[in-house]
Amino acid sequence: MADKRPLITLLTDFGTRDYFVAAVKGAIFSVNPNVEIVDITHEIPPQDIFTAALTLWNACSAFPRFTLHFAVVDPGVGSSRRPIIVMTDNYNFIGPDNGIFSYIYQHEEVNRVLQINAEHYYRMPVCPTFHGRDIFGPIAGWMSKGIEATKMGDEIDDYVKFTVPVPREFTPSLIKGHIIHVDHFGNCITNISPNELDAARMRLNKILVVNNHQITRFCTYFSECPEGEVCALFGSANLLEIATPKGSAAQMLGVNRGTEIALHLAV
Amino acid sequence: MADKRPLITLLTDFGTRDYFVAAVKGAIFSVNPNVEIVDITHEIPPQDIFTAALTLWNACSAFPRFTLHFAVVDPGVGSSRRPIIVMTDNYNFIGPDNGIFSYIYQHEEVNRVLQINAEHYYRMPVCPTFHGRDIFGPIAGWMSKGIEATKMGDEIDDYVKFTVPVPREFTPSLIKGHIIHVDHFGNCITNISPNELDAARMRLNKILVVNNHQITRFCTYFSECPEGEVCALFGSANLLEIATPKGSAAQMLGVNRGTEIALHLAV
Amino acid sequence: MADKRPLITLLTDFGTRDYFVAAVKGAIFSVNPNVEIVDITHEIPPQDIFTAALTLWNACSAFPRFTLHFAVVDPGVGSSRRPIIVMTDNYNFIGPDNGIFSYIYQHEEVNRVLQINAEHYYRMPVCPTFHGRDIFGPIAGWMSKGIEATKMGDEIDDYVKFTVPVPREFTPSLIKGHIIHVDHFGNCITNISPNELDAARMRLNKILVVNNHQITRFCTYFSECPEGEVCALFGSANLLEIATPKGSAAQMLGVNRGTEIALHLAV
Repeated sequence: MADKRPLITLLTDFGTRDYFVAAVKGAIFSVNPNVEIVDITHEIPPQDIFTAALTLWNACSAFPRFTLHFAVVDPGVGSSRRPIIVMTDNYNFIGPDNGIFSYIYQHEEVNRVLQINAEHYYRMPVCPTFHGRDIFGPIAGWMSKGIEATKMGDEIDDYVKFTVPVPREFTPSLIKGHIIHVDHFGNCITNISPNELDAARMRLNKILVVNNHQITRFCTYFSECPEGEVCALFGSANLLEIATPKGSAAQMLGVNRGTEIALHLAV
Repeated sequence: MADKRPLITLLTDFGTRDYFVAAVKGAIFSVNPNVEIVDITHEIPPQDIFTAALTLWNACSAFPRFTLHFAVVDPGVGSSRRPIIVMTDNYNFIGPDNGIFSYIYQHEEVNRVLQINAEHYYRMPVCPTFHGRDIFGPIAGWMSKGIEATKMGDEIDDYVKFTVPVPREFTPSLIKGHIIHVDHFGNCITNISPNELDAARMRLNKILVVNNHQITRFCTYFSECPEGEVCALFGSANLLEIATPKGSAAQMLGVNRGTEIALHLAV
Repeated sequence: MADKRPLITLLTDFGTRDYFVAAVKGAIFSVNPNVEIVDITHEIPPQDIFTAALTLWNACSAFPRFTLHFAVVDPGVGSSRRPIIVMTDNYNFIGPDNGIFSYIYQHEEVNRVLQINAEHYYRMPVCPTFHGRDIFGPIAGWMSKGIEATKMGDEIDDYVKFTVPVPREFTPSLIKGHIIHVDHFGNCITNISPNELDAARMRLNKILVVNNHQITRFCTYFSECPEGEVCALFGSANLLEIATPKGSAAQMLGVNRGTEIALHLAV
């Protein structure tokens, strides 16, 4: 059996029809040919740091410990925004210091955040519009070869973090949240987690109101809900999502990211 | 030279902009870091089991023997539909028991079909809406490590199979079939194979009628046909397809999957 | 550490929803399971040889020496157009002889071009509509196993090359060029390089005119430009590009590939 190769995942808004993603991979392989690169996605909407942060958080935990996660949605590329490495117990993350790691900061124990400055590891000359290829890629490559993250820069503690949107409990019987993502199938992912809606509350009568629609069907899996109807269920990200079997709940309800939702509990 | 790594292909309707595909890969690599994962496609139209079955059949035969093909288009995920492994002489297939392997059943010698129940190999807790990550992925990982498929579950013989649509020969001079797929280029793949149109019949005068268009040009390759005209030819899936050079035959003829075609032979 | 595996990149117009790309990969792995395959893109617009040539040139240089680049946008597949291998100091390229390597011919030292004819390495029977799977893929596989390119065919010197569009310097103060690509972000890549606009000229007052818009802001990175405004900057392909931060310059200016641009210099 061949030796285990280190894993690097990639998440960007580069799209898949230009040479950008390949250039990053080429830069990584130029440093370390014995690495396994896995795409998370390159279809984050351009400059959408929030979706990048959420998708990264949802994806990363399925990967083996010590996977290196490269996340570059970087409208400030070339400016004074800092390139950073985020170290947690399980993973290292690399990308720009613009909030893209906010969900990681919120949910994981962060051991250290480093501002990358080890220019001797960069691909030279560094293009001010493509740090993915010239800074983040090569640094990821060297880290995958075993160079310590701490050799890549100096610790900082003023890293940029946006406020992860959490639901608000107005009364014990009213929780308001938002749709934070609409996925490929049209399922609407809310920010309501088992923190707000635990097993005890799931047993109560409840109504989820979104865009004047009242959802009273709470399911465990999609096909439990009759076709043409809408249900709510805890999905694979462990968040309450609104779905309809074989269709797009977002389309059916006329909602999208940002739409407010209200959960009424018969307490 | 490094040792050969086992191959797993992935075919889903998960799309490429969420974290779903990456989570499956992470789950596989968590079990077996020394595996080679190849995407067939993740853009099967949502819940379109037929297109999944056809695409899987067309793709799989190019892969080396013993490749493990993971195919998950799974509207019934979480319900009582069964997770299965299909064993043929050349390959193992893994996915839901919903007809997705119908083309394999039709065209390959199936040695055994197993209902997966080896829960100790699952990723726990199993999310009822994401068996790709929590059941199929890990099982594929363990199989790629050499665990016998027969250790994964018990044999069944009542697996679900849809009827593969075959052309109907009304008279020796009239065969009716359907367009079963429109590809990326707009080529219209029919279900007419060399079974219906062998070399002898190819030499006859013939007309292919589709949506009131009469196609009399039968070619060997695309650029044999003048631009702006439509031809029929046996394509890479060994099925008769309707094409136009540098354009979309589907658009030009106003047809799509399901459109009936009639082949008139001057016998 | 495992041995280094040879790299093959793939660039096609096959799209990502059919079985085409997977079949190429299966054909390569059938020959050499110990190869690393990296997608450049499969979303070249159908039959768009120019975009393929440009994208290949932009992507290839990030890869390690001896990478084998497979580039198949091939409207003439099955006709008398020739399958070829292009050898440069750094890379081998494989694809059809239809101009797809024109940017390579223009910018790299080409050591040799070979017409492939080593049929014993093909996947048989060769389908006249899918040389990617049956000729180019297997040949790439064998080359990655160390078979000399020169064993694959005979040298030619009449290979097909389109004229790479270069800007025209009308007077020392007027250079006219074109937009040669609009990327995923809506940035408009021109064919003006540092050859036309070197550091000395960059210091001059200058106006870039495109579709009646006058661009006077020349930047180093995107976010240097105020949102809602348009700038010009040298991008990651070392070509002058027109951009707007967090938006599509192509949409804002109403331009696309082929649009003429004029650069006025205050000499």
